Amino acid sequence: MVQLALIRFEAACNNSPTARNQGIYTGLPICQSLSHSTSVRAGSAMGKKLLVDVDCGVDDAQAIMMALAVPDVQILGISCVSGNTTVDNVCKNVLRVLKACQRPEIPVFRGALKPILGNTLSAGHFHGQDGLGDAPDPKAPGLDRIQKEGAVAAMVRIASEHAGEVSLVATGPLTNLAMALRIDPNFPQNLKGLYIMGGNTDSRGNSTMCAEFNFAADPEAAYIVLNEFLCPTYIACWEFTCHSKLPWEFCDVWLAQDSEKARFMKRIFQHSMDASRGGCFQKEMVAGDGFVSCDCYAMAAAIDDSFVTAFHKVAVSVELTGTYTRGMMVLDTQELLKKKHKAFVMEQVDLEKFKALMMAALK
Amino acid sequence: MVQLALIRFEAACNNSPTARNQGIYTGLPICQSLSHSTSVRAGSAMGKKLLVDVDCGVDDAQAIMMALAVPDVQILGISCVSGNTTVDNVCKNVLRVLKACQRPEIPVFRGALKPILGNTLSAGHFHGQDGLGDAPDPKAPGLDRIQKEGAVAAMVRIASEHAGEVSLVATGPLTNLAMALRIDPNFPQNLKGLYIMGGNTDSRGNSTMCAEFNFAADPEAAYIVLNEFLCPTYIACWEFTCHSKLPWEFCDVWLAQDSEKARFMKRIFQHSMDASRGGCFQKEMVAGDGFVSCDCYAMAAAIDDSFVTAFHKVAVSVELTGTYTRGMMVLDTQELLKKKHKAFVMEQVDLEKFKALMMAALK
Amino acid sequence: MVQLALIRFEAACNNSPTARNQGIYTGLPICQSLSHSTSVRAGSAMGKKLLVDVDCGVDDAQAIMMALAVPDVQILGISCVSGNTTVDNVCKNVLRVLKACQRPEIPVFRGALKPILGNTLSAGHFHGQDGLGDAPDPKAPGLDRIQKEGAVAAMVRIASEHAGEVSLVATGPLTNLAMALRIDPNFPQNLKGLYIMGGNTDSRGNSTMCAEFNFAADPEAAYIVLNEFLCPTYIACWEFTCHSKLPWEFCDVWLAQDSEKARFMKRIFQHSMDASRGGCFQKEMVAGDGFVSCDCYAMAAAIDDSFVTAFHKVAVSVELTGTYTRGMMVLDTQELLKKKHKAFVMEQVDLEKFKALMMAALK
Amino acid sequence: MVQLALIRFEAACNNSPTARNQGIYTGLPICQSLSHSTSVRAGSAMGKKLLVDVDCGVDDAQAIMMALAVPDVQILGISCVSGNTTVDNVCKNVLRVLKACQRPEIPVFRGALKPILGNTLSAGHFHGQDGLGDAPDPKAPGLDRIQKEGAVAAMVRIASEHAGEVSLVATGPLTNLAMALRIDPNFPQNLKGLYIMGGNTDSRGNSTMCAEFNFAADPEAAYIVLNEFLCPTYIACWEFTCHSKLPWEFCDVWLAQDSEKARFMKRIFQHSMDASRGGCFQKEMVAGDGFVSCDCYAMAAAIDDSFVTAFHKVAVSVELTGTYTRGMMVLDTQELLKKKHKAFVMEQVDLEKFKALMMAALK
Repeated sequence: MVQLALIRFEAACNNSPTARNQGIYTGLPICQSLSHSTSVRAGSAMGKKLLVDVDCGVDDAQAIMMALAVPDVQILGISCVSGNTTVDNVCKNVLRVLKACQRPEIPVFRGALKPILGNTLSAGHFHGQDGLGDAPDPKAPGLDRIQKEGAVAAMVRIASEHAGEVSLVATGPLTNLAMALRIDPNFPQNLKGLYIMGGNTDSRGNSTMCAEFNFAADPEAAYIVLNEFLCPTYIACWEFTCHSKLPWEFCDVWLAQDSEKARFMKRIFQHSMDASRGGCFQKEMVAGDGFVSCDCYAMAAAIDDSFVTAFHKVAVSVELTGTYTRGMMVLDTQELLKKKHKAFVMEQVDLEKFKALMMAALK
Repeated sequence: MVQLALIRFEAACNNSPTARNQGIYTGLPICQSLSHSTSVRAGSAMGKKLLVDVDCGVDDAQAIMMALAVPDVQILGISCVSGNTTVDNVCKNVLRVLKACQRPEIPVFRGALKPILGNTLSAGHFHGQDGLGDAPDPKAPGLDRIQKEGAVAAMVRIASEHAGEVSLVATGPLTNLAMALRIDPNFPQNLKGLYIMGGNTDSRGNSTMCAEFNFAADPEAAYIVLNEFLCPTYIACWEFTCHSKLPWEFCDVWLAQDSEKARFMKRIFQHSMDASRGGCFQKEMVAGDGFVSCDCYAMAAAIDDSFVTAFHKVAVSVELTGTYTRGMMVLDTQELLKKKHKAFVMEQVDLEKFKALMMAALK
Repeated sequence: MVQLALIRFEAACNNSPTARNQGIYTGLPICQSLSHSTSVRAGSAMGKKLLVDVDCGVDDAQAIMMALAVPDVQILGISCVSGNTTVDNVCKNVLRVLKACQRPEIPVFRGALKPILGNTLSAGHFHGQDGLGDAPDPKAPGLDRIQKEGAVAAMVRIASEHAGEVSLVATGPLTNLAMALRIDPNFPQNLKGLYIMGGNTDSRGNSTMCAEFNFAADPEAAYIVLNEFLCPTYIACWEFTCHSKLPWEFCDVWLAQDSEKARFMKRIFQHSMDASRGGCFQKEMVAGDGFVSCDCYAMAAAIDDSFVTAFHKVAVSVELTGTYTRGMMVLDTQELLKKKHKAFVMEQVDLEKFKALMMAALK
Repeated sequence: MVQLALIRFEAACNNSPTARNQGIYTGLPICQSLSHSTSVRAGSAMGKKLLVDVDCGVDDAQAIMMALAVPDVQILGISCVSGNTTVDNVCKNVLRVLKACQRPEIPVFRGALKPILGNTLSAGHFHGQDGLGDAPDPKAPGLDRIQKEGAVAAMVRIASEHAGEVSLVATGPLTNLAMALRIDPNFPQNLKGLYIMGGNTDSRGNSTMCAEFNFAADPEAAYIVLNEFLCPTYIACWEFTCHSKLPWEFCDVWLAQDSEKARFMKRIFQHSMDASRGGCFQKEMVAGDGFVSCDCYAMAAAIDDSFVTAFHKVAVSVELTGTYTRGMMVLDTQELLKKKHKAFVMEQVDLEKFKALMMAALK
């Protein structure tokens, strides 16, 4: 049985009425037709400028390393937010990743300590207590390396200085983004694009019953971002990342590369791999066992416009008041909300490109 | 891409670990293994006793006619509930269906005028204002043919008189069922099985943003039934019925049969067909255009134990407080609710059997 | 400072514009002006017929005994509902009260085991585990004395047999009443009046943060009753009963009467008195320490039309979805709900009459 | 009937057990006993430093003018927030007030355009469309006079520069305050005190059914502030301001003063007075007709420590999810939330002092 509302590349190229009616687009037509796409956005990453907002657990680390490995991608700053672990741990983890990649010049900013309402959700230590596999590095850089400027102020400033040129990749709770909007209402329109890992399409929760962790950790922030960020918004939801998993065999090869980066990754990833493969987190998995590096799908989409081969273009929002569903992303497939702004919800990707980006990350 | 959590008959017969871990069952193993199944429950419908609770729109009518056409099925009573139309219209519609099938002896009971909280949800007149395609019959039986005994009292009495032998098929809002439980706490355990058309598995709404009509029309009743009916419970959800649709070509052949029943169906179905095929309801459809007789899937499952070939065995409940998700069925795939009672959520059916049952209904 | 929206008898007799504008009525004008009041409803209780619905804790017992002591009051039946204790304990407690008053002929009916949604709220054992002070009576009547007819069916039948003549006094969760409405939509209009102990006027909770026990124990039932019972509805809310408390000195005199009834009351009341006077429940009390027999205010209002001297006439409803406020009664003072039906929320009573009714109850 | 939980000065001085048990304090004992009160906080306003956060309607203007008229009070900055009118109108209104008082040197900062969730609540134009009585001034200062620094950044900076010395008076929705906390977690503890006009004590709404405007306009912000600002917090709730109203006769004398300020006030107040006295807003009023300058009670409390003569010391929070009660302040009188931090909810004030402060404001 083919997954609902998924049209393959070939069908869409035929411009079938069904595809158009259901608001489904594939990679190529989007590149050609989207009105916001004025600059060159080919498969190459020529001159891509990124802001990266993370709650740096292991898959955030993988996503940062993926971006650092692409020659034409420029990371203007990395902002930290509480999520997988405390914001101080997140800051330390980002510094460690940058050190492992020998890129200490990239500025790192401390952001929100807590979600908007202040009630912290436990991440359940999938990534270890420190968010990076509890594999401490005695020579890790200190917090004095963090910028004095706060994350929200820095995000607003950088987006303004590079208005229309910078894409924001958000792989944690969206607290900093929501704050940036309230500080500067122009923040979203200064962005070229927004790439989010978070949310659900099919009500399959991985932390609460129906909600994905990043959205469940700060539902109000997710609500604000999905409703008020009117820039082009691309979302890698939890179920999508599960369906796009890689085999563990790939992971073995990936980690076996003879490089400092690969050895670093092996150390910090061991904890999560043990947890995953040991079956503790099987109930959360939507499509069975496998290597799901959630945040990397959002990053890959930001890096390479041809990575995503099918989107569901649909208005989205977030449930705030549900007993079982608080934090769940909702899709307005019936267009009951009458929203003009639609998000691009990722449906299908080029896994060969993904593997290539992943391999490069640890070279 | 294969739909999540769906294991085909063959795989399950192999008793693959994946299938067992994910609580997925197929028709045959269920018949053999379920502890509650003491009587003969083979593909034949030998001696099946049914109570049918309907909000008789056109697909309820189709479901009733399907059951009436199976020789060994005995309908002990039909209880009516407000839903697709007012309860008085529902009563009239059921009487018309029984007349068309020349089965006026089956007792019909009037049930709840309103959902539990009293706030009626409009059915949007998909089935016409009168619920039966606005194709009035001047010779239709009058409401004096309705039993004096109320639906809830009758359901409680009949279930008690045939304790352990009667299956309840519910194709409307679950108001009467919830009331019956509060009147007689033994009501659920007197049932051999409960077959429901209603609810969602993937947050795809057909009346509100995330909720299916029968559950959205009385979320409290659905909550009560899913949480307190501890009898074997089989659910045909909205997305499942969409994925299991028949081609319109089948419908044409079906209606073209030379019989009074087929001509009756053609008259009452015209309105819905025009609405469906005209595209007005396309946005609601989950898996594209087609002939989706929702209620018939629940009825077929009650009639023929071998009809359903794959279930998802999972604890379920209903969201009551969500802004976008009120009335949405939730699946506790992570077992966070610690509920012992699991429902059998239909995943895959034998469509050839379904076509045969459908054809027979109008013969 | 005079309590808001409270106009004394004298002011109202002057028909001051303020009083009329604010929908405030006093006892006498109501008797003369209310359109539903066709029969004689003077201070005397001539021919009063009552249905009493209780979750028989100690103050329910006091209310029943108050009614039994008034010559012209006829109790047609007592229906039991889960609340202060299990419905079986409630049934036993009512039988004990009737035995203590030598009125075993009054029929007692078993009602709902659970509130509508099925989630039971603990009453915190203010009235003891058995609801009647944990002072067991080895000679107490057995449950075989309970009627075979269920409470809801009996309430519907009795109200229908005495249409327009019977007042319903409800001193527990309103589950049975809500059920009776769904079974017989005419049930409310068959009632002459409805007298409720329950709900709040000022968001002062006594079981949850903002909700009174009877409403918090079944918020859906309270919602249904306040929104769909269009008969004259009189409500003794929690804060009102606190403000109308009697001094403990009165209680001492009351219990010191030389009668079987007084000795019975002393036994069953000891537990609650110890709890109250010991300070354990001080935080719940709205207006300081004192003897608050909540249910008796609703009963006294039903018995004697001149008992209540000031009402607030206002549309009311119940909050169902609040985190802190679920079960809280809400007053629509700004008329935002546009409801025609207004309740009479008790504001001031004749305490001398109350004392007289109380004293008579134990004579 | 005396208002609940109100103990007069005399009673409290006697240290009556009731007063202590119920957490009620009067002005003097608070001054003497509160541990946070290290500096001189006598009736004089010697050296008081204020930050003022407003959604400048007419009563905000009155509050600002009250503070400007007290010699020893120093306003370090006025931050603007959307509420009674748009944030740009608020900015203009504050500039007009400062001009009318010849205090153009006080810095004014633009804050949040929208509440946290982004959904604006209409203020119903009680203060006119422009928030200041629709009495435009062609010579009003332009928005170029607004500081370039944003309100949140300025609040954080000023509180840090004057740590422990500055009191914050908030008379609009609490958006800016909540933002400041997330930008700088130390913000609350840098404040000497927080004085809020907003919220309810008795569920009497003035904009929605149960909620006061400032809290209803941004419930999330109110929730954050009441739960995370651990500085001494004084709240002038809606019902309290209604009970503490002044007679319209006072208002007439007040406005009749021969001064520029009085003439300015008369112009901008005419619209609200017409609305109030014309009866359009009578239904909202809790304690009958009168002159209720809500924001001035919070300001007077910040200016003069002896102004408030009775508080209710109680933990408070805000309902976020209620259907009728969203935005309602809740009092945890039963201490169910186990919160250590208690707010000082104003119960009784010295109205003579209030009149004197009011008169001085327009001199």
